[in-house]
Amino acid sequence: MDGSFQQVSSRSMASKTQVGFIGLGNMGNPMAKNLLKHGYPVIATDVFPESCKELQELGAQIVDNPAEVADKADRIVTMLPSSPNVIDVYTGANGILKKVKKGSLLIDSSTIDPAVSKEMALAVEKMGAVFMDAPVSGGVGAATSGKLTFMVGGVEEEFTAAQELLSCMGANVVYCGAVGTGQAAKICNNMLLAIGMIGTSETMNLGIRLGLDPKLLAKILNMSSGRCWSSDTYNPVPGVMEGVPSGNNYQGGFGTQLMAKDLGLAQATATNTKTPVPLGSLAHQIYRMMCARGYAGKDFSSVFMFLREDEKEEGQ
Amino acid sequence: MDGSFQQVSSRSMASKTQVGFIGLGNMGNPMAKNLLKHGYPVIATDVFPESCKELQELGAQIVDNPAEVADKADRIVTMLPSSPNVIDVYTGANGILKKVKKGSLLIDSSTIDPAVSKEMALAVEKMGAVFMDAPVSGGVGAATSGKLTFMVGGVEEEFTAAQELLSCMGANVVYCGAVGTGQAAKICNNMLLAIGMIGTSETMNLGIRLGLDPKLLAKILNMSSGRCWSSDTYNPVPGVMEGVPSGNNYQGGFGTQLMAKDLGLAQATATNTKTPVPLGSLAHQIYRMMCARGYAGKDFSSVFMFLREDEKEEGQ
Amino acid sequence: MDGSFQQVSSRSMASKTQVGFIGLGNMGNPMAKNLLKHGYPVIATDVFPESCKELQELGAQIVDNPAEVADKADRIVTMLPSSPNVIDVYTGANGILKKVKKGSLLIDSSTIDPAVSKEMALAVEKMGAVFMDAPVSGGVGAATSGKLTFMVGGVEEEFTAAQELLSCMGANVVYCGAVGTGQAAKICNNMLLAIGMIGTSETMNLGIRLGLDPKLLAKILNMSSGRCWSSDTYNPVPGVMEGVPSGNNYQGGFGTQLMAKDLGLAQATATNTKTPVPLGSLAHQIYRMMCARGYAGKDFSSVFMFLREDEKEEGQ
Amino acid sequence: MDGSFQQVSSRSMASKTQVGFIGLGNMGNPMAKNLLKHGYPVIATDVFPESCKELQELGAQIVDNPAEVADKADRIVTMLPSSPNVIDVYTGANGILKKVKKGSLLIDSSTIDPAVSKEMALAVEKMGAVFMDAPVSGGVGAATSGKLTFMVGGVEEEFTAAQELLSCMGANVVYCGAVGTGQAAKICNNMLLAIGMIGTSETMNLGIRLGLDPKLLAKILNMSSGRCWSSDTYNPVPGVMEGVPSGNNYQGGFGTQLMAKDLGLAQATATNTKTPVPLGSLAHQIYRMMCARGYAGKDFSSVFMFLREDEKEEGQ
Repeated sequence: MDGSFQQVSSRSMASKTQVGFIGLGNMGNPMAKNLLKHGYPVIATDVFPESCKELQELGAQIVDNPAEVADKADRIVTMLPSSPNVIDVYTGANGILKKVKKGSLLIDSSTIDPAVSKEMALAVEKMGAVFMDAPVSGGVGAATSGKLTFMVGGVEEEFTAAQELLSCMGANVVYCGAVGTGQAAKICNNMLLAIGMIGTSETMNLGIRLGLDPKLLAKILNMSSGRCWSSDTYNPVPGVMEGVPSGNNYQGGFGTQLMAKDLGLAQATATNTKTPVPLGSLAHQIYRMMCARGYAGKDFSSVFMFLREDEKEEGQ
Repeated sequence: MDGSFQQVSSRSMASKTQVGFIGLGNMGNPMAKNLLKHGYPVIATDVFPESCKELQELGAQIVDNPAEVADKADRIVTMLPSSPNVIDVYTGANGILKKVKKGSLLIDSSTIDPAVSKEMALAVEKMGAVFMDAPVSGGVGAATSGKLTFMVGGVEEEFTAAQELLSCMGANVVYCGAVGTGQAAKICNNMLLAIGMIGTSETMNLGIRLGLDPKLLAKILNMSSGRCWSSDTYNPVPGVMEGVPSGNNYQGGFGTQLMAKDLGLAQATATNTKTPVPLGSLAHQIYRMMCARGYAGKDFSSVFMFLREDEKEEGQ
Repeated sequence: MDGSFQQVSSRSMASKTQVGFIGLGNMGNPMAKNLLKHGYPVIATDVFPESCKELQELGAQIVDNPAEVADKADRIVTMLPSSPNVIDVYTGANGILKKVKKGSLLIDSSTIDPAVSKEMALAVEKMGAVFMDAPVSGGVGAATSGKLTFMVGGVEEEFTAAQELLSCMGANVVYCGAVGTGQAAKICNNMLLAIGMIGTSETMNLGIRLGLDPKLLAKILNMSSGRCWSSDTYNPVPGVMEGVPSGNNYQGGFGTQLMAKDLGLAQATATNTKTPVPLGSLAHQIYRMMCARGYAGKDFSSVFMFLREDEKEEGQ
Repeated sequence: MDGSFQQVSSRSMASKTQVGFIGLGNMGNPMAKNLLKHGYPVIATDVFPESCKELQELGAQIVDNPAEVADKADRIVTMLPSSPNVIDVYTGANGILKKVKKGSLLIDSSTIDPAVSKEMALAVEKMGAVFMDAPVSGGVGAATSGKLTFMVGGVEEEFTAAQELLSCMGANVVYCGAVGTGQAAKICNNMLLAIGMIGTSETMNLGIRLGLDPKLLAKILNMSSGRCWSSDTYNPVPGVMEGVPSGNNYQGGFGTQLMAKDLGLAQATATNTKTPVPLGSLAHQIYRMMCARGYAGKDFSSVFMFLREDEKEEGQ
């Protein structure tokens, strides 16, 4: 432990040396750009070569696979769609672990099952390197403007080193505890977010049908105990607020199928830990039904439209 | 309408004349006291004579029934447990309507089905008087300190007159729209509150089981999109906040069975208006199950304890 | 009681005297025809005059309103859409109670809140007549072929008299207990039916996605503990069974919005009796959402289609 | 493939040669005994040596670990608590795969995630052997009396060979399709069973509160569309049927925590296949809450008691 810790220290001081970045999708691309902007040489890769072009033009070095990244950089950020991708990028035939250097700092910003994060951490630790999970909240906009929030799990001594890089890409970097707690915090937040959003949508819909003006109802909720982020910052009812997806036909924002994916993770961790999450579970099912009904690509606040009654008349 | 309106005007100016108060329970009693404190002569009644003693000692005039109150006061506040009580106090054999004066202002602060409020308003209007629904948020503490919030439904021209009285008992008096919208606002707020509280409890429980420190998790949620009143103002996890029921074995506060009652109203109005409220409906069922399992008298944030797993070991 | 009982006896013996019928909709029309076929003179009315034409041509006497029916017949069957219609037909300005004869037998086959049945029974009893609730199971087909099931609530001594008439219209006439229990039995059955149908749909969908052949899965369930009416008699998956709505694009059968109505009644009685019904409540919400999404007129087994995933591809 | 197939053929003919059995718990012990009774020499192992004593006294050969079983028998049945145990018994340091012979038939009767069954099948196939999943329905009683139902997934050509052994232990052996479909069928059946049981419990509870006699209500449901296995064969209300756990304080039968485990598997497969299962998901949560409230060891029909209201009085 001592040895690896010293190497970590030397690595941390060697600031502005190359940083690896694996996964240049909608989120990874602007994140890597922000590292470049802050003066870090970036060495990157992605399974889709075309995803790498823009970054290459901006000066990043593009290599063929994660192993090559690990061969050239001792700090690597990964940003991947789901658990199997992370497992492959770390432990696959051309994975990071094939060439990872002792003392390297590997930060995974993907949103995945915390159990997988722990597995990766163990495998990384065996190679004498350090793994931290650091999933983000905030979408493509926040990634572009460098305003993401990172929730970080891992050894506390390494947090400063991680923070140095992550603060180039985010406005908030929060230490959450042992490996996996970054994922746990992200999953917990998004589960409560989904519950609040569906709850706000049901409530606004009911109130409107009972004769309340939507703006007035939102105002009343927001000064009362019904207040939540979905009612006061991201109201799902068209016309209540400006600058949110409900004002733009639910385009942009955080897609329903991404929310369904996060709720699936919440459900899986709840099942594994035998934790009852009745509302979280029903929220998952509702977003799953929405995906089946054509809402997969709309912002998750479109649940207001999904729940809204529009039957014209009703017989006996 | 003209005639009644003029009478209303004269009534409104006749400030500090007698105000009737019907229903001197846990909430009504401190509310009536606050009217006395503000210099209003109070004439009151309750089905339980002993409930009247304290107010009588403070100078209120006690009479036998609602009709007598209506005979002597042209502004009356009612604060009753549920719809059947309200119907009886207004339309019963000794009800207000037997002796109500033209132009009287009748304010009902009970939490009941908005459909019943509308029925009462129609009956009252036929007698040439004015009905407003004005349910409260805030418990016995807020009633005592005069810090209630009133959500008021009824003819807008009468709002100022109602506000004059209600502001003696509350810190906020909000005009919501036509008759019944006060109830609607109250019901909507409490439905979203219940959803937020159960959601917060599930989320905190899951996070703790995933290794997060409860205080840290609450902090993260409160700076993120999971934030809600139940997470930042009334956290259900013992030890996270001070001065809330979770810190006092869930005593005091807002009882589970009162929440179950309000959710029953929400469910009934949703059913009547054919509005889907999946989470609100499940929240209702959960509070109903809690009542069956001995939580009826505990604060509604005790759902955290209800959901918490404490099985010692588990076999095959 | 003695007096009315003797009159009842004389009335029962006076078989094949006129029978009143109020409500000639999709169900009431074929029911009244079956009374005619069994040789009963029928005297009928409906709010829509055109609904009466067919019956008139078959020999029924048509009158203007329920009071006139009651003036001419001492046995009356009512078949109406919902509680307010029943209240109006019994207690309205031209309602049955205006002219009901002592000892009359009033049978209500509408599906309504059992609390309203009890109210009607009390009002009828005050007039010296007898009320029974007798809702049906079985749709238009069973009404036409005289194969309905009647669930009957009311004084047991009157059951034989009711059975005489009801057995002309149904294959099963079941005595359930005091007034209101006919409704209770109907509501309970339909709540469990809805739960079974949604459960079967979820299960078949999951099994298919896991690689099971739908017919084989149905066969396995039906020989195991998952067996239910919806799996073995009315399977919701196209191609599994013949002669059911799933084989006919979900046309015919029992409409989703009628199921939603019955589940609304179940929810209301559960709320009033403080009974937790978590799955029944969620079933209600799901059928409510389906009504909002264009399924109102399809058979209730179309929930299989509603839940089925058909998203083509899914991104990150 | 040809080679392995020929070996399989020779193996199948070599009837009454040694059969391996791994996992001698509550279920595995009586199952292995039934193999002995049918004249098969059994070679067995279990992680708890004391579990092997009874079988050894009856003539079985006990060895140290799964690898040794595989060394001596070319037909092996495994009966283990959960996925990790199965993975360990097959692929662990002393696992079956260390010594499995070409052409061996490996039948896993554990109830686990079908995805794990498929993984095991792939690993087994690589060794030139054959894997089938064959989970059971029926409890300890059925295991003892040899009346289990086996749901079998795997190559169809091998089904006869599997059936030969399984029919010594069960009354029904059903072929379900490719590897994993045995698990799928089991999981689907139990999910629908749980939904039917909770639905029946809610319905019976509601009916009783509405004044219906429980036996009569059960009779009505069972002749109507509400009918299901839980209403007609395993009614959860004490006094309605004899010979079921509800008549014996919910002792024996199928434990709540085992049902919660199976519903967890159903939830996981539904999440993985993006299948909405709203009632199945809520059923999971309810059984999870019951485990947290002391019902873990009671029969799963005790959900009737869990849902039953017994609050003595209720305030305002």
